[in-house]
Amino acid sequence: MDIALAEARAAADRGEVPVGAVITNAEGRVIARAGNRVVETKDPTGHAEMLVIRAAARILKNERLGDCDLYVTLEPCPMCAQAISFARLRRLYFGAEDKKGGAVENGPRLFDQPTCHHRPDVYGGIGEAEASRLLKDFFARRR
Amino acid sequence: MDIALAEARAAADRGEVPVGAVITNAEGRVIARAGNRVVETKDPTGHAEMLVIRAAARILKNERLGDCDLYVTLEPCPMCAQAISFARLRRLYFGAEDKKGGAVENGPRLFDQPTCHHRPDVYGGIGEAEASRLLKDFFARRR
Repeated sequence: MDIALAEARAAADRGEVPVGAVITNAEGRVIARAGNRVVETKDPTGHAEMLVIRAAARILKNERLGDCDLYVTLEPCPMCAQAISFARLRRLYFGAEDKKGGAVENGPRLFDQPTCHHRPDVYGGIGEAEASRLLKDFFARRR
Repeated sequence: MDIALAEARAAADRGEVPVGAVITNAEGRVIARAGNRVVETKDPTGHAEMLVIRAAARILKNERLGDCDLYVTLEPCPMCAQAISFARLRRLYFGAEDKKGGAVENGPRLFDQPTCHHRPDVYGGIGEAEASRLLKDFFARRR
């Protein structure tokens, strides 16, 4: 999660919402890391989780990442939560809860939907204080 | 929708689930077109809608596509529905309903969630017969 937080800080420095993500393999080795790049790349799907999933799948040459775990500093939105399910990721560790945009423990709670085919093991609140602080600072500076 | 159906047929020919999508601008001109490329590109996020949204945003150099409409042959899943919302697409026309994986009129009905910030105007059942036939033929051949 420290690497994900570093990616979140780097995203903030680029003017992006500070969210970072990392994918590790079964041995705990980092496969890919990414921060938000929505503004820079003009890509509405450019969330950290999407970028890191696409990168890891490309690197491992497999659209299924069943042995891998994802660390992300913020609770994933519906787009990213569904991508996590499609990628068959084993575990999801997330930092801050997102009451407005989250889709894991908030909103549509996608992994609890009867139509969800794969649900990762979910561990929330990992590195939450720092993840929240980065987001609060970012939005306070923008106001 | 005819172009989206052609993209769906081309996807089937590549061994992909036959779903195709098109984005048009306010004048009805085609900005981007795409079919599923999950298997070919080893990208779990490689749904037709995601590819066409990313392509249109890249072409228009804007992550918001507020004047644009999206045509897709199948009801979008949660990932794609949320991407449609993020991209601020004006209208969504879809073909076949997807009772198992859809997230617009089925499952989590994302656009009706209180946490959804942008809901496109939705028109379902456009070109439904042909879109359904393509999917049924594809899955029948795989069995």
